[in-house]
Amino acid sequence: MRNSKTKTQKGAMIYEGKAKQLFEGPEPGTIIQHFKDDATAFNNQKKGTISGKGVINNRISEYIMLRLEEIGIPTHFIRTINMREQLVRAVEIVPLEVVVRNRAAGSFSKRFQVPEGELLPYPIVECYLKSDQLNDPLVTDEHIFALDLAHPQEVEEMYSLALRINDFLCGLFYGVGIRLIDFKIEFGRAYEEDGGVSILLADEITPDSCRLWDVKTGEKLDKDRFRHDMGGISEAYQEVARRLGVIPDAPVTETPKAASKKTPASKPRSPRMTKLTITKPRTPKGKK
Amino acid sequence: MRNSKTKTQKGAMIYEGKAKQLFEGPEPGTIIQHFKDDATAFNNQKKGTISGKGVINNRISEYIMLRLEEIGIPTHFIRTINMREQLVRAVEIVPLEVVVRNRAAGSFSKRFQVPEGELLPYPIVECYLKSDQLNDPLVTDEHIFALDLAHPQEVEEMYSLALRINDFLCGLFYGVGIRLIDFKIEFGRAYEEDGGVSILLADEITPDSCRLWDVKTGEKLDKDRFRHDMGGISEAYQEVARRLGVIPDAPVTETPKAASKKTPASKPRSPRMTKLTITKPRTPKGKK
Repeated sequence: MRNSKTKTQKGAMIYEGKAKQLFEGPEPGTIIQHFKDDATAFNNQKKGTISGKGVINNRISEYIMLRLEEIGIPTHFIRTINMREQLVRAVEIVPLEVVVRNRAAGSFSKRFQVPEGELLPYPIVECYLKSDQLNDPLVTDEHIFALDLAHPQEVEEMYSLALRINDFLCGLFYGVGIRLIDFKIEFGRAYEEDGGVSILLADEITPDSCRLWDVKTGEKLDKDRFRHDMGGISEAYQEVARRLGVIPDAPVTETPKAASKKTPASKPRSPRMTKLTITKPRTPKGKK
Repeated sequence: MRNSKTKTQKGAMIYEGKAKQLFEGPEPGTIIQHFKDDATAFNNQKKGTISGKGVINNRISEYIMLRLEEIGIPTHFIRTINMREQLVRAVEIVPLEVVVRNRAAGSFSKRFQVPEGELLPYPIVECYLKSDQLNDPLVTDEHIFALDLAHPQEVEEMYSLALRINDFLCGLFYGVGIRLIDFKIEFGRAYEEDGGVSILLADEITPDSCRLWDVKTGEKLDKDRFRHDMGGISEAYQEVARRLGVIPDAPVTETPKAASKKTPASKPRSPRMTKLTITKPRTPKGKK
């Protein structure tokens, strides 16, 4: 599951994003996803580098995608190539950032003045249009259909997968003493040889795309440390990777020795049960 | 349908909004809605007065509410009291501004960079949280339920009523040479004596709350003239009222003579059919 022994040929760069580069893969229908150390926040207003982030995110995303495949969530992940690169299926990215929130934080807290950390009555799913130019605006289902961003069946599929992914990740992170506050995922359309189109989880799942708080101390172990100049960013990312057992205890370098065995996960004690003040749970209408 | 002959006793003012005041009505469960000439835009950043607006809006809203009642849309309207006041049922306002859009304009155009006037594939419904403090943010169904702003059945009812109101108003305005671009409505919960709760159309439907464009010339006949300092505001409001046949041709004053008969509506000739460039129509998912 670590580096592949076969030398994988890398083609031309086809896209450079904020935190990743994409190259043509060795066969048609494949892409090489390269994780950079670059970080941006607030729609590129803030830029920086988090040393070693690309290496850690490559591993965390690989680990999570493999675990998700095991429970039947289709993903773009094929195999890890090296420390910073993984081979993935080429997909047509659905231009939506799908966000699942378990507790209020970030833009939700700001939009509705709900204190950070307040438990929502149930996990809610939001979609944002992927458009730096438009500042990634929130979109409703009506917008998604009217602007032809995705078909109704695709939205239903993405919502359903997003909620399954949330359930699984809540458990996975909770098992290592981390509370999953919210996360952002992207989906892609894979065009099958038989002419069918399937929806796959694409992009990444890493501390860049999740809010992860230590269950016991509430300490943030994610990109919010970068967003809000809290320091200890690399250390936080490494702590997540260490708890998940995907890196050894020692700091990651570009040429590590053979990976050590998983470190035992730190078990959460009594989770803080934040008091509900927003509302009572209710059955959501037409939960997709 | 004009002024009531009975003298209606006005109680204490219970609320003052941007364009209206509400007073206790003569009997329990009633409210007197007083239309002011004041206008605001961009969440109170722009303020002004549109001479005679209150008188015209009182009449337009009365006219539209009565027509809607005739097609079975329940409204809060009871009767007009005088030039600026109408008696309405006291309701608990659902804290949502429900917007129906037929064509792109205003915040939709800005959010998605879709040119003003572009036809949407079908009428879309949006909800905004009524909160000046939070700047009336767009909310999704997920937000509405999680923040307990309305029950799923209420949202379904409001969406359904909003689309019926849109269909009717499109026809009503088109019949007098006006294209209904979009509009905002509010709903209220009426607590019935039998313990039931019903959803009523409340607030107002006027050129303050609609975008109305002349079919032939595209001239704006609504509050956008105030928002964008286009001048001729009172005249535009009067033109709408005149076409609907609710005021005489002469300018409205506070003490008009007996109202003249309806002026014949100007008939639209060949409506401009704006070319679709956004998307092809499709069946919306779970249209509420």
